[in-house]
Amino acid sequence: MALDEGNTGAPAVDPRVVRTRNDILRTTLQVLMDEGWDSVTHQHVAQVAGYSKATVYNHWRSRADLVRDAFLRLRDMPHHVPTGDLRSDLIEEVTTFRTGMVEQRLDRALCALVNLTDAAPDLDEVRIRLVTDGERVVRELLAPVLQGSELEAATRMLCGAVLHSAMMHGAPPSNDVIASAVDLTLRAVGPSRTAR
Amino acid sequence: MALDEGNTGAPAVDPRVVRTRNDILRTTLQVLMDEGWDSVTHQHVAQVAGYSKATVYNHWRSRADLVRDAFLRLRDMPHHVPTGDLRSDLIEEVTTFRTGMVEQRLDRALCALVNLTDAAPDLDEVRIRLVTDGERVVRELLAPVLQGSELEAATRMLCGAVLHSAMMHGAPPSNDVIASAVDLTLRAVGPSRTAR
Repeated sequence: MALDEGNTGAPAVDPRVVRTRNDILRTTLQVLMDEGWDSVTHQHVAQVAGYSKATVYNHWRSRADLVRDAFLRLRDMPHHVPTGDLRSDLIEEVTTFRTGMVEQRLDRALCALVNLTDAAPDLDEVRIRLVTDGERVVRELLAPVLQGSELEAATRMLCGAVLHSAMMHGAPPSNDVIASAVDLTLRAVGPSRTAR
Repeated sequence: MALDEGNTGAPAVDPRVVRTRNDILRTTLQVLMDEGWDSVTHQHVAQVAGYSKATVYNHWRSRADLVRDAFLRLRDMPHHVPTGDLRSDLIEEVTTFRTGMVEQRLDRALCALVNLTDAAPDLDEVRIRLVTDGERVVRELLAPVLQGSELEAATRMLCGAVLHSAMMHGAPPSNDVIASAVDLTLRAVGPSRTAR
């Protein structure tokens, strides 16, 4: 454990340490979503994760640090690696985002983050890092064909369709809806610019 | 108070009753967002709203009823009344949604709703009614020019861009981003179908 002092952000060398940290951070988010902020204590998280309280303290001094790292772990969500076909790259990336939304219960995690930000303004930085990383691939894919507020709008529309579906419709968008969202976007861009 | 028995959804006749109900429902949502589900008791809500506990009980027997009506009140958000110009109607409606998001702190209310749904599955019905009403005008405006999964995708993209901006970017979309979102949508529809 001593190999990984605190929250330097540097990758831990020992795979056991990586596993321990991941177990504890996953549990932290779970406790936060299921039981609320008041339940996120070193003692309770350690107990639920099956580690000693000392282990949790070794890695995170305050519960603010613990919660911050639990959310930052969501940055490690997979992204699609672009292949050069804009339409299929966008569909794959939005679908990957949908998978993360479902598997990581991302809508509930994001809600917990929003609700916490009033109490812990430091988490604003976490939110910004999450959205920047979450939108990155969609934004990069669209940057050659859209600019300015249109690039901004298209990025937020594609990501927003997934978030809105999960939160408000109670289910992520279907394959058809994702394909239609991408097709509408590319039709707006126009055939001359997408070189399909 | 006797004029408005329980949760019939019928409009109360006496304006004092309407005001009392609105005060209490607004306070309920506030307490839920600020202090969490455990604080939503008849006693505490009455105290914060400045009414007697008996008044709150007169209108809502259980706290589930109280919370349900507090969320359903969000349905009464204003909508734009279409004028026949598709572009400006869409911009006005999305802008009205943005205003509601900011003024009613809708992103936080929706998050509270999502977090509660596990504990109170009845609230699923509330979520469905909110999203149905929230999307209604956008969907009706687009229905003559888009069908099937494209209508679904465009509706979720326009509403989702507002939700995603408020939640993830920490600020609602600018006027430019809203206008661009609408312009991208209408460009995808094509000039022949929008008859601009």
